[in-house]
Amino acid sequence: MPEEMNLLMFSGDYDKAMAGLILANSAREIDVDVTMFFSFWGLWLLRDPDKISNEDKTVYEKMFSTFSPKGAEDLPLSKMNFNGVGKKLLVEMIDDNHAPHLIHFLKGARKKNVKFYGCKLSMEIMGFKEEELIPELEIVDAKTYLKSALQSNMQLFI
Amino acid sequence: MPEEMNLLMFSGDYDKAMAGLILANSAREIDVDVTMFFSFWGLWLLRDPDKISNEDKTVYEKMFSTFSPKGAEDLPLSKMNFNGVGKKLLVEMIDDNHAPHLIHFLKGARKKNVKFYGCKLSMEIMGFKEEELIPELEIVDAKTYLKSALQSNMQLFI
Amino acid sequence: MPEEMNLLMFSGDYDKAMAGLILANSAREIDVDVTMFFSFWGLWLLRDPDKISNEDKTVYEKMFSTFSPKGAEDLPLSKMNFNGVGKKLLVEMIDDNHAPHLIHFLKGARKKNVKFYGCKLSMEIMGFKEEELIPELEIVDAKTYLKSALQSNMQLFI
Repeated sequence: MPEEMNLLMFSGDYDKAMAGLILANSAREIDVDVTMFFSFWGLWLLRDPDKISNEDKTVYEKMFSTFSPKGAEDLPLSKMNFNGVGKKLLVEMIDDNHAPHLIHFLKGARKKNVKFYGCKLSMEIMGFKEEELIPELEIVDAKTYLKSALQSNMQLFI
Repeated sequence: MPEEMNLLMFSGDYDKAMAGLILANSAREIDVDVTMFFSFWGLWLLRDPDKISNEDKTVYEKMFSTFSPKGAEDLPLSKMNFNGVGKKLLVEMIDDNHAPHLIHFLKGARKKNVKFYGCKLSMEIMGFKEEELIPELEIVDAKTYLKSALQSNMQLFI
Repeated sequence: MPEEMNLLMFSGDYDKAMAGLILANSAREIDVDVTMFFSFWGLWLLRDPDKISNEDKTVYEKMFSTFSPKGAEDLPLSKMNFNGVGKKLLVEMIDDNHAPHLIHFLKGARKKNVKFYGCKLSMEIMGFKEEELIPELEIVDAKTYLKSALQSNMQLFI
């Protein structure tokens, strides 16, 4: 049986999402199965900037949508963000090293058959619709996450 | 033997505490044993607002107690807290979905026999007394946490 | 075979680093093998304040170095830092309890043969040189981390 890694992606930070997706890509390259469960702010990472819509949303959900980052490249840093200036500096340093951006690691994970789970309750509370997020995403509840995590060889909360 | 999940609750954020307690409740519902070890800011979650006392505390401990959130519902968000406004917005969105508040998930976990461990060193440094926190809490050291975590099927640092 | 704990040290916070290092020291005291993998802000913890240098660095790397905390004792708190005042208060409370500082837990972990891994990609992007960090550090890639983590009995992302 192949080994398995399970990542709970909770945070909506550029740097933490980068850490999670680098691990996901590296694991697939050594034939480890990967499941990523996106909950709360973690869902920001999966927003498709071209499919964001305010249809069928309450006033609160519209406000929340407006203040939320619009997909992977729009995420802030967890530290030294300095209103976006620190983030820009970090991305320049990534470019100087010819390293990929977050969106490239996300594309890599999608190509390499990482399993994408989205938290049902978070989706409902935040008012995100499935069609606004990446198409690979399967919406599941906490029990489905737990069963998958319990049978994995390692689990991280990111 | 039943499966077991171990959560190290470090953060004192409403949203992260919610994630931990939803997992704890869901795990119990599928017969998974759960141990939660509360350290540092995680202890805020277990303060009983009616039992907070400044007796036998140093000046620093009193200051620390005053600046600390007073129990589960008083915790801030890890993101978009906006001095409490973002937190209120999120709680309204939770209510709109008829979803439970953090305090209800905490009550659920207590009823479902989740094991509550509190970090001895954190209690001493922060000056929290056992009688100020929920009565189920058992104060243990890091080694007791480690032994419990090592024999679990999954461990998360939240 | 001895049991093994693997910690991914991502955050550069005094309190979270303290949690990780207390666990590492406690684990060694009960004969559990420990590997710590430092990535992103986690590398700040390992800077030697006496060996920080701007030689061979780009303008961005110099700026980044200047804004980064200079080793363990210089790290901020993840919460209630209040521009350093909250951090000072916490350290006073640690002293009142005759508990060790972060730097002492780091020394303990080094003496007790904790394995120190540093993330190659983070080092390159942030422009940190090996000679600026503690000498025990071995620079490895994400796959080396993953292989070590997958064979461990528990893994945490801190």
